[in-house]
Amino acid sequence: MLTGLMQQVPLTLNMIRERVAVLYPDKTVTTRFPDRLHVATYREIVERAGQLANAIRECGVDRGARVATLAWNSHRHLELYLAVPCMGAVLHTINARLSSGDIEKLLADAEDELLFVDQSIWRTICADIRVPACVKRVVVMEDEHVDEAAAPSTDQARLCALYEAFIEAQPPNIDWPSLGEDEASGLCYTSGTTGDPKGVLYSHRSTTLHTLGCLFVDGIAMRERDVCLPAVPMFHANAWGFPYAAMMAGAALALLCRQTDPASLVELINAAGVTMATAVPTVWSNFLDHLRAEPASAARIASMKRLPVGGAAVSRSLIDGFAQFGIEVMHCWGMTEISPLGLTNVERSDLAPEERPHTRTAQGLPIPTCTVRIVDEHGRRLPWDGTAPGELQVASPWAAAGYFGGSAGPDGSSRSFTRDEGREWLRTGDIATIDPHGYVRIVDRAKDLIKSGGEWISSQAIELQLANHPDVREAAAIGRPDPKWQERPIACIVLQHDTPENRKRFEMQFKPYMSQFFPKWQIPDEISFWNDLPKGKTGKIDKMVLRQQFMRNREG
Amino acid sequence: MLTGLMQQVPLTLNMIRERVAVLYPDKTVTTRFPDRLHVATYREIVERAGQLANAIRECGVDRGARVATLAWNSHRHLELYLAVPCMGAVLHTINARLSSGDIEKLLADAEDELLFVDQSIWRTICADIRVPACVKRVVVMEDEHVDEAAAPSTDQARLCALYEAFIEAQPPNIDWPSLGEDEASGLCYTSGTTGDPKGVLYSHRSTTLHTLGCLFVDGIAMRERDVCLPAVPMFHANAWGFPYAAMMAGAALALLCRQTDPASLVELINAAGVTMATAVPTVWSNFLDHLRAEPASAARIASMKRLPVGGAAVSRSLIDGFAQFGIEVMHCWGMTEISPLGLTNVERSDLAPEERPHTRTAQGLPIPTCTVRIVDEHGRRLPWDGTAPGELQVASPWAAAGYFGGSAGPDGSSRSFTRDEGREWLRTGDIATIDPHGYVRIVDRAKDLIKSGGEWISSQAIELQLANHPDVREAAAIGRPDPKWQERPIACIVLQHDTPENRKRFEMQFKPYMSQFFPKWQIPDEISFWNDLPKGKTGKIDKMVLRQQFMRNREG
Repeated sequence: MLTGLMQQVPLTLNMIRERVAVLYPDKTVTTRFPDRLHVATYREIVERAGQLANAIRECGVDRGARVATLAWNSHRHLELYLAVPCMGAVLHTINARLSSGDIEKLLADAEDELLFVDQSIWRTICADIRVPACVKRVVVMEDEHVDEAAAPSTDQARLCALYEAFIEAQPPNIDWPSLGEDEASGLCYTSGTTGDPKGVLYSHRSTTLHTLGCLFVDGIAMRERDVCLPAVPMFHANAWGFPYAAMMAGAALALLCRQTDPASLVELINAAGVTMATAVPTVWSNFLDHLRAEPASAARIASMKRLPVGGAAVSRSLIDGFAQFGIEVMHCWGMTEISPLGLTNVERSDLAPEERPHTRTAQGLPIPTCTVRIVDEHGRRLPWDGTAPGELQVASPWAAAGYFGGSAGPDGSSRSFTRDEGREWLRTGDIATIDPHGYVRIVDRAKDLIKSGGEWISSQAIELQLANHPDVREAAAIGRPDPKWQERPIACIVLQHDTPENRKRFEMQFKPYMSQFFPKWQIPDEISFWNDLPKGKTGKIDKMVLRQQFMRNREG
Repeated sequence: MLTGLMQQVPLTLNMIRERVAVLYPDKTVTTRFPDRLHVATYREIVERAGQLANAIRECGVDRGARVATLAWNSHRHLELYLAVPCMGAVLHTINARLSSGDIEKLLADAEDELLFVDQSIWRTICADIRVPACVKRVVVMEDEHVDEAAAPSTDQARLCALYEAFIEAQPPNIDWPSLGEDEASGLCYTSGTTGDPKGVLYSHRSTTLHTLGCLFVDGIAMRERDVCLPAVPMFHANAWGFPYAAMMAGAALALLCRQTDPASLVELINAAGVTMATAVPTVWSNFLDHLRAEPASAARIASMKRLPVGGAAVSRSLIDGFAQFGIEVMHCWGMTEISPLGLTNVERSDLAPEERPHTRTAQGLPIPTCTVRIVDEHGRRLPWDGTAPGELQVASPWAAAGYFGGSAGPDGSSRSFTRDEGREWLRTGDIATIDPHGYVRIVDRAKDLIKSGGEWISSQAIELQLANHPDVREAAAIGRPDPKWQERPIACIVLQHDTPENRKRFEMQFKPYMSQFFPKWQIPDEISFWNDLPKGKTGKIDKMVLRQQFMRNREG
């Protein structure tokens, strides 16, 4: 063995902080607060991050200590994104849609020492929450108009500071420490719909490499001339890594607090000249409806060119619909455990023309440095033939190798990670096929597969085709217990225009429509119409609740 | 301190080998041998690399041992690029233009255990060279038509094998070892025009990160749909990293052995559908002349879109000239010690329109993860005002921190590296300005600055304006000793059409032309006309020899 003679430059988020300060100080971060737009330069963001880090240090927060946020997307949250990891502490972004009780548990599990919370969120929860003893200080981030009367007035007030006052007296300069790249930089708990939430503890190395991965031309392709709108919350896996990627690339940022309704998006896109945005498909499907209904809005978003979309399957109708407005939808896939991006749907030049439309709805190709495989229930590799479904497993320098803290439970880790073929693998719990070109297609969550007559039916494949039907607004497929077949699929449908006539018409068309895509035994036996489908805290359809409600309606 | 819980995936070249084998096995590598085109798939390249690694292992080559190549650009050289580092040995690419004596010295300094040499090169040097005792085996890579009679017949024959016979009996499968990312992967000696050659010992980490850096959309932007022609030799800093980047991205490769004349380039571009190529400016300036003279050639290279060019300053006339053929020239800058790319000239969206033409001739912006500064002779940072010139220094995970072996000399390293501000810096020896946007402009090699009356004159700035003059084919500025001013600049010129009338005409125009760009004291006192300027082994103008010849002519 012989060691190379190259510089030992650790891959840390300080690279991003330094680069944006030196090369892009005048580019802007636009935050859309409910009542007005706030524009800051990166110079201001980085200087305020320095003030913030000084203030946090004064609270006695050491290297490796956790600092929590409960906040929507704003310039202050971005300042925390820089200050906390770059000073050597760990940024714990808590899902603002959780209940007070869940938040208490996460604060305790992470042993957070500080909590930064949006005033609007604090107003809602401060009466209920019992902040655990580990938290030395609660810093409330003012909504745009500071309202003294709205300052916390509960018995928790003794803990509280207001953000602007907290950083005000501090100098912007700070002696940022030299960090090792394996030190923890961030902590994000998965949503926990399947049990206790599990903490993913990112390292500087993993997040920095993920950031570089967002610059690849075949992929997210974040670049200096972009104005990036991450319409996914900053508490979801670092807003999919887009804020860090934008700063590394020198792209401007547009942040929208919490509003993802079409009118708010149009306003921010227009004001900041947004060129690319990201969020889950439901946000964009509402947005597309709005564009079709309001030609004036379509004209106001002419700067928008690209939509990398993930978090749920993307239908061809969404892709084709945006193409009519000159906007390219790119399917992506990831999970909190993968920082989160693992796949991006880049169109290969060697696809046959007839393969292209279908391939675009796949989740994508592994991003360089990510390795994927599919395995059967015994852990044996399955072929890349586009048809064999198996559990998707990922090896990547930005994939998790274990869970943090006590909440994962004693065997949480063993179910989620495995080690063989000389490397670590994350078991995603997603069932996928991989075609000969390498495109991964998620066919289901392992737990959402419907087992009928000893064969598996992919609920997600059914949902995709239902979503492509012009009359359908939302759709989900679930399994109903069946004495003969074990389970049979049910189509849960929200119609675009729900009238008795339309329901009748849809029922008439249903089987012929589905027969184009599925063998008879895979077509749902029954259609269940809904006004709305139940959603979880991350905005995804909650199938567990859906199944329960369906059975309750059935029995009731 | 708290360590992140992420997978420990080492950044090694095995990532590239695995990715190209799994995702891009059917994409092609086209080599243009003098007598025909050879096309191989990446599947074949990787399988043959496996055979090659097995054969090398059988020779008793261990982890960290050096394996030398003396070869032009070909599929076999690419197989060595994969096999040698991925098996844990170190690929030492020797400049094929060196003399036998220099090659002997490098083989001994690196303690190479094997030497892979092109048959055409071996034929030229085998009579002269005394292969050092460390070399166990010389493997001769056949030109396309194996000619038994041309096999080595000197007393060195006992050492020799032919490449195809060497790998033939080996299986393609091999148990590739798990490597640490800091292990050495490659060794490249700088050209040594300034003294003894110095070895740069790349690590797997540095080369892998450099490869990822070539995928950034703002930069080289290597992508799957590219067909990449690195027209720079594979013994120059890994052909600027393009072969590794192409394989990581899934781009096809076109390799041209040694011919860089316009006709050969046109033929290969046309045959392989090349979309991007790279080489030093002189190659492209000849190519541009050819395109202008031969409209048929212009039609045959319609697939070409991008030319990242480096190795010497790029003139605006070259950029504008290629723009007329729909080809974008992007200025890049690097050196062997930086793997080699450190700067790419990406046009920022916030440049004023009037700044753009001038900015395009700068060497560029630091690539993400690279940090630059300019310092005065006392090591103090200079401002980024676009005018203050200082030594360019680079901190980067793919920059060298020291030199390998004995040839650097006892104080070679201390002159080239420094450590302050909490990090290591490579002292490039280049004098540069940095403008407020971050664009670095190399104004000279430190040793090529002309000192006149206590002020520095940039020879490179003079050369650039001379090169922009329509009558000039080649130009260099050197300092002539001057009793009054210490030195005065001299313009050494090769005219496009060298006639006595043209010389006279050029002399008449010279001062008015230069006065547009320079103050009077910076304008060369004298024009010296040449038929050809002396070049070093890397094809660059050798100013040391030029100065000597100039003085000899003057005295003689």
